[in-house]
Amino acid sequence: MTEHIVTSYDDELKALAIMITRMGGHAEKVLTDATQALNRHDEELAMRTINADEEIDRLEHEIEELAILMIAKRQPMAADLREVIAAIKISSDLERIGDLAKNIAKRAVAIQSETGAVKAALGIDRMSRIASRQLKDVLDSYTQRDVDKAMDVWHRDSELDAMYTSIFRELLTYMMEDTRNITFSTHLLFAAKNIERIGDHATNIAETIYYLSTGAPLREARPKKDASSFTPADYPQTDD
Amino acid sequence: MTEHIVTSYDDELKALAIMITRMGGHAEKVLTDATQALNRHDEELAMRTINADEEIDRLEHEIEELAILMIAKRQPMAADLREVIAAIKISSDLERIGDLAKNIAKRAVAIQSETGAVKAALGIDRMSRIASRQLKDVLDSYTQRDVDKAMDVWHRDSELDAMYTSIFRELLTYMMEDTRNITFSTHLLFAAKNIERIGDHATNIAETIYYLSTGAPLREARPKKDASSFTPADYPQTDD
Repeated sequence: MTEHIVTSYDDELKALAIMITRMGGHAEKVLTDATQALNRHDEELAMRTINADEEIDRLEHEIEELAILMIAKRQPMAADLREVIAAIKISSDLERIGDLAKNIAKRAVAIQSETGAVKAALGIDRMSRIASRQLKDVLDSYTQRDVDKAMDVWHRDSELDAMYTSIFRELLTYMMEDTRNITFSTHLLFAAKNIERIGDHATNIAETIYYLSTGAPLREARPKKDASSFTPADYPQTDD
Repeated sequence: MTEHIVTSYDDELKALAIMITRMGGHAEKVLTDATQALNRHDEELAMRTINADEEIDRLEHEIEELAILMIAKRQPMAADLREVIAAIKISSDLERIGDLAKNIAKRAVAIQSETGAVKAALGIDRMSRIASRQLKDVLDSYTQRDVDKAMDVWHRDSELDAMYTSIFRELLTYMMEDTRNITFSTHLLFAAKNIERIGDHATNIAETIYYLSTGAPLREARPKKDASSFTPADYPQTDD
């Protein structure tokens, strides 16, 4: 293999990493904007956010195409192959984060006129800030190849789960207090669930970074695993 | 390349396909059992279903490890590479289906003692049967490499979305009628949403089969795309 080909492969790996970083930036922005649209009942921002998700989908296709092309053309081995596989996996998680955030923006349009939702939406806003930080930190750990930072994100996911549990109970209480609260509370319930799911995808990305750096899958059970399996009926249930 | 290596690679591809089929069978069973546990308030079945998801997770790891090993060792090109990439993508969708079904089983435990949930759960059961059929058909289309059948599954997803919309409204009505219905209705709302998401994953698999057979991504917009973006507040919102 000539020096030229090696350099070119490195360029492709760099291009892949840049696309992941750009995709991650978009996903962070869609989450922040969707939550802001929900809190301010800003229909115009919600609409822009819904449309912005397209760019994330486009980037996922581009990353996947480049990754498959690289495998076919370069036939990478070991760490190089892991880089390419990791890019496919991370872009798939970022695409789902975009979808979940977009769904929050759609709910912002749906509950537009209901002012009773304001207080309840504050909890969603707090959750969203934590999720944004998780997403930012895990993307930084990808750029810096910092496994310890990725593991911090992985361990901190329980914080989001705890907030989700608390918001879930708060929203149930609103619904029971006044039936007029039921519709918007239901939408906020799904919004909170979406942010909890976004946290899970950040955790997935942390696991991929672990695999990328060590070559082994992370076998340790997730911190929150089954924490809510046998809880009373008014507790939320985790997805994993 | 010797005859021996070609045969062995074919064997690996067959092993991959068999593991996908097995994983798909498990995912179907977890969905059916979780819904039955919900309908019959069968806590013992719910517990078995929650534990059965582990086998799906194990199979996903095995498929991914074999797929990466095959890429590294065999350096497949074109259609062969697509087979391996498709296996990774399909196993990832099946793993999510297992998680979503497991979450329904957890809710079956949570709403165990609430008899008011019986009628509402019938709609969930109908949805689950449709989702099971979608999953079965898309797995058959994978085994038979039948793109037309995969496209049928893809187009039929709107049926599940319509059922979800109907159940969503029904459950909101229950909640408004009697505050004692709120807790179980919320759990059933998430169960219905999970089945709708399972349908989306069957649709993803259909798209992967299209890519596998044609070498091109399916660019056509999904049938349900944005159908509920601007609907009134008591309508559910799609995730995509």
